Amino acid sequence: MSILKGNLLYGQSGGPTSVINATAYGVINEAKKHPEIGSIYCMINGIVGAIKDNVVCMDQYSEEQLELLKQTPGAAFKSARYKLADYHKDDTDYMKILNTLKKYDIRYILFNGGNDSMDTSDKLMHFLDTVDYECRILGLPKTIDNDLVYTDHCPGFGSAAKFVANTMTQIATDLEAYPTGKVTVVEIMGRNAGWLTAASCIACLAGCGPDLIYLPEIPFSIGKFKRDVARVYEKNKRCLVAVSEGIRDADGIVYGESPAAKDAFGHAQLGGVATMLANVIKTDLGYPSRGIEFNVMQRASTNLLSKTDLEESVTIGRIGVQWILEGKTRLMVCMKREEGPEYKISHFGQALPDIANGEQLIPRNWINADGNGVTQEFFDYVRPLILGEVFPSYKNGVIEMFRL
Amino acid sequence: MSILKGNLLYGQSGGPTSVINATAYGVINEAKKHPEIGSIYCMINGIVGAIKDNVVCMDQYSEEQLELLKQTPGAAFKSARYKLADYHKDDTDYMKILNTLKKYDIRYILFNGGNDSMDTSDKLMHFLDTVDYECRILGLPKTIDNDLVYTDHCPGFGSAAKFVANTMTQIATDLEAYPTGKVTVVEIMGRNAGWLTAASCIACLAGCGPDLIYLPEIPFSIGKFKRDVARVYEKNKRCLVAVSEGIRDADGIVYGESPAAKDAFGHAQLGGVATMLANVIKTDLGYPSRGIEFNVMQRASTNLLSKTDLEESVTIGRIGVQWILEGKTRLMVCMKREEGPEYKISHFGQALPDIANGEQLIPRNWINADGNGVTQEFFDYVRPLILGEVFPSYKNGVIEMFRL
Repeated sequence: MSILKGNLLYGQSGGPTSVINATAYGVINEAKKHPEIGSIYCMINGIVGAIKDNVVCMDQYSEEQLELLKQTPGAAFKSARYKLADYHKDDTDYMKILNTLKKYDIRYILFNGGNDSMDTSDKLMHFLDTVDYECRILGLPKTIDNDLVYTDHCPGFGSAAKFVANTMTQIATDLEAYPTGKVTVVEIMGRNAGWLTAASCIACLAGCGPDLIYLPEIPFSIGKFKRDVARVYEKNKRCLVAVSEGIRDADGIVYGESPAAKDAFGHAQLGGVATMLANVIKTDLGYPSRGIEFNVMQRASTNLLSKTDLEESVTIGRIGVQWILEGKTRLMVCMKREEGPEYKISHFGQALPDIANGEQLIPRNWINADGNGVTQEFFDYVRPLILGEVFPSYKNGVIEMFRL
Repeated sequence: MSILKGNLLYGQSGGPTSVINATAYGVINEAKKHPEIGSIYCMINGIVGAIKDNVVCMDQYSEEQLELLKQTPGAAFKSARYKLADYHKDDTDYMKILNTLKKYDIRYILFNGGNDSMDTSDKLMHFLDTVDYECRILGLPKTIDNDLVYTDHCPGFGSAAKFVANTMTQIATDLEAYPTGKVTVVEIMGRNAGWLTAASCIACLAGCGPDLIYLPEIPFSIGKFKRDVARVYEKNKRCLVAVSEGIRDADGIVYGESPAAKDAFGHAQLGGVATMLANVIKTDLGYPSRGIEFNVMQRASTNLLSKTDLEESVTIGRIGVQWILEGKTRLMVCMKREEGPEYKISHFGQALPDIANGEQLIPRNWINADGNGVTQEFFDYVRPLILGEVFPSYKNGVIEMFRL
């Protein structure tokens, strides 16, 4: 193992989570303890910051300011959805990144994101090989979608799941206020994987969860949906439904999809399926109904973090620093759930391309036979991830945040 | 003052707030201390419970269970939107209520609601006069809309305002994650009064609040809205807008109104204005945009209560019990803000009809000249109401609740 000396560059990419900045905190706090690392820089707007020489040195921030990262939503160092070209065809961006790395003597890169970010990291390393620039990179996972392969779960998922479970309980309780309630359809994020929508089941442990759960993993039939809702509504005079934004029919047509809107990676911009389904219920079944969308609240509610998720997110950042100093590179830090009655996590590294090209869906046997709910296996999987509470600091009644 | 002995009946009416059950707690806890009160009963579904002889005796619940009322959203004893007829024309409902009052020997009624509930209470008392049934009634205010007259503010508003301020801060932070952000239009409850929407201004104290605020008090012009948004977006490449569900044009036409849907009091069922305005921005200005609706979350998020509001809500319940035992009747308990540098509240009673027929809008000089923001006077008014945090108890990662 060669001993490198130089500076560390950290970047954030993809959709924010309520704890991605907690991972940034873990990185910065840990890196300060290691004299092999000179200064810590953060890319502004992820890889775009490296291309444009837009980075910020963290030396100027007090420990008190940095602590606030643990309760700041969004991406404190700004994110990006930017796809690097194939460097064999066009190395413009790569040459600019190289200049930035040289200018700040960057020898360690920690890149915090999902599978697109692992793809970016992998491409960059292949390019750096061709120019003999000595540098290590590790990927740090984050996504509320929980759809990264190899890792047991992803930082960000537990807190989003906790928001979903608590908010579903509150909506269910509100719904019970009147003798006749509405059919309430709640739309939850998740393009192809229904992890976060399925996590709404935890509300049932509080005695008032969703009656029906529809996930992208199971082909959605509008006819069956109406029959399911009618059965519940006729019995209870109210019905609470959780649907993933990405539910699709047997032909793969996504219900809420607007074909015109796609992001830089070609993902369709989704939304609006709850309102659509609520209208179907009103029109075809004649029941009062409403659609609710959790929107960005499900990834930004730092008032309601899972302590487990928060601590794991900080730890992922610390481990990234420790491993990269030990010589590990071109891996994403993954979590493994240890066997045994107590929930316990260990860490391992997985090659970047393995992560970049995979997508973890919910196993079929964790979804009920009828395709409108989850099984005990799913409950057992998700329950430990939302445990523990964190009480953030407030000023003027509003949660305090880190500001660049 | 005649000394009455008998039982106490408490009821909830209208839209839930996240602290209406805290007032129920105050009533029940205080009533238990007074031997003049035998048992405490709660109407199920407000006045409908009194009509249908559907009441629950609170003797069966432990102090531990009752404590959970302070963190339970919705209406723990179920609500109703039921309008009593004029008893001169049809006294059917009134005779049934009288039977219930006699059956349970009810001499004290505390009715927790908004102006419709004060109207119901007043009508009932006029009827009870005609049949010489000795009974006292007091109204206890609650509404997230904050639109009751005479009282400085309403229990339920502070917590809803705290949710709005914090969630706007989080949305604003999330919106800053990308180099180019969306025009984000957030729809907040409020039919005729914009108090809750205006409270989003508090997010600005955290450094990231709404750029524009539109209230029902100011006639809404779609042309001016587009010019306002364009000005902000061209400068900042993002724009955060707060709109009341009830914004209307100069002719009084409400933008999000569906004329078909009306509740029992003839109020139109609103919703959808954020999506509508986001579409206008996309279509007419070509900016990326999205609509977000806070929906029932703004009145049900007991994870994020204002301690000030919670304590005031409990106190209103206690004072109701104390006053009704002292002989006060046919009043609603109101709050007065004392003069002086420290925020301090005292209480007074106001006749039920005075409350029933009024509606408190935001004073014009608390809204800026341009009609798209608020002034310092509004800040000073709302700031103390959202102060203080409460950390509820959780089980399995989900907030614990009182269940009947």
